[in-house]
Amino acid sequence: MIPMTGKHTWAIPEGYIPRESTGPEPELISHESLCVLNTTDEDATLEITVYFTDSDPIGPYETEVPANRTRHFRFNEFEDPEPVPKGEPFASVIESDIPVVCQHTRLDS
Amino acid sequence: MIPMTGKHTWAIPEGYIPRESTGPEPELISHESLCVLNTTDEDATLEITVYFTDSDPIGPYETEVPANRTRHFRFNEFEDPEPVPKGEPFASVIESDIPVVCQHTRLDS
Amino acid sequence: MIPMTGKHTWAIPEGYIPRESTGPEPELISHESLCVLNTTDEDATLEITVYFTDSDPIGPYETEVPANRTRHFRFNEFEDPEPVPKGEPFASVIESDIPVVCQHTRLDS
Amino acid sequence: MIPMTGKHTWAIPEGYIPRESTGPEPELISHESLCVLNTTDEDATLEITVYFTDSDPIGPYETEVPANRTRHFRFNEFEDPEPVPKGEPFASVIESDIPVVCQHTRLDS
Repeated sequence: MIPMTGKHTWAIPEGYIPRESTGPEPELISHESLCVLNTTDEDATLEITVYFTDSDPIGPYETEVPANRTRHFRFNEFEDPEPVPKGEPFASVIESDIPVVCQHTRLDS
Repeated sequence: MIPMTGKHTWAIPEGYIPRESTGPEPELISHESLCVLNTTDEDATLEITVYFTDSDPIGPYETEVPANRTRHFRFNEFEDPEPVPKGEPFASVIESDIPVVCQHTRLDS
Repeated sequence: MIPMTGKHTWAIPEGYIPRESTGPEPELISHESLCVLNTTDEDATLEITVYFTDSDPIGPYETEVPANRTRHFRFNEFEDPEPVPKGEPFASVIESDIPVVCQHTRLDS
Repeated sequence: MIPMTGKHTWAIPEGYIPRESTGPEPELISHESLCVLNTTDEDATLEITVYFTDSDPIGPYETEVPANRTRHFRFNEFEDPEPVPKGEPFASVIESDIPVVCQHTRLDS
C-alpha cells in the first residue's frame, strides 16, 4: 500500500481513544495502532506530538524503533509527558531522526 | 500513513450519509469523518464542495481549523448552504488557504 | 486522504465479489465500491480492465463520469463484455481520458 | 486508491497473524492479504522480507506474479525459509524485479 520511501515526518489526522466503559453497555473499543518500520541499520528515535481540537498540543512523546525492527504502538500506552486524553479526537505527527515508514491502522470491535 | 505534506486541496471520492431508519430494521449506520490537521501557526479557512451523481455540486461549506489544532468533521453536521443529502453517494473536495493534512475515515457499525 | 491530483490511470490490486449464498449460512457479503470523482468541466470516459490470478484480463468495461459529478460503481454491476467472475480474487486498472480521482472502498458486513 | 505507478519496492508496516484458538472463545481472526498486480508483459519475481519487534528479519520469501496477472497472498501461506510467526506484530518489505502495484488489506471478522 505504501511505496518504500522512508520519511522523517508523518502525519495522522485521525485519532481517538474511547473512554472506559462504566455501565452495562460496553463502549465501542477502538484499537488504533501506529505501526513504524525501520529498515535501516541505524536505530531511529521518534518524537510524537499529539494535536487536539480545543487545547494545545501535547508532546513530544519519545520512543525508539531499533535498526531492522518494527514497532506497533498504541496511543494509550504513551505516558510521558502525560497520557493521551480519552474520549476526544486527536491527530498526531511523528518525527524520526532516521527515515522510517509509518502506517496508522484502526480495528473496531 | 500519510507523509507530512500539508496541501491546499484534497479530494475524497467516497461519501455516503445513510437515511434515518424508520422501520424495525435499523439501517446500517456509517460514521464518516473528515479529519483535518493544521500544524501551522496560522488559522486555516476551509471551503468544502460536495459532488453528486445526478445533480450539481453543493457548496462551499465554510469552516475553520485553528493553528496547531485538529478538527474531525462529520458531513451530516454541515448545514450551510444546505444539509448534505442523505441516502445518496457523494464526493468532496476540501480547499484550504493554509496547507493542512486531511484524512477520511469510515466506521461502520 | 487523497491529495487533489486527478490522474488518467489508477490501479486497485484488491478485488473480490463473493459467490451468492445458497445455504442457510449466508456468505460474508463484501460491498466493494469504486468511487470516481470528476471535478473538471468535461465528461470523462473510463475504461476498466480486470486482472485475475489464472486467466487473461477481461475488458475494457466502458463507463462515464460526467463533468462535475461523482459515480460510485460496484464491480458486480459491470456486464459488458462479461460479468466479473464471483468468488475469485481480481485486480483492476482504471483509465480515463480526463484526469479523475479514484478511491476503492470495502464495506464488509 | 492508488495511482498507477508500479514500483520495485513496497513497505507494509502493519502485520499480524493471530494465534490459533484453542479454547471456547475463538480469537479474533484477521485475514490480512497482500494484493499484488503485475500489468506488464513480463513475469515478476518477488522477494518478501518480514520484520519483527524483537528479532532479526526473516526472508526473503520468494514468489512470483506472472505477466498480466494479480495474486493475493496471505502471510500465513509463506513457508520457506520458515512460517511467519503467529501472535506477534510484524512488518514487511516487498521487492520485485518488475514494477508492480501492491495493496495491503485487512478484513477483521
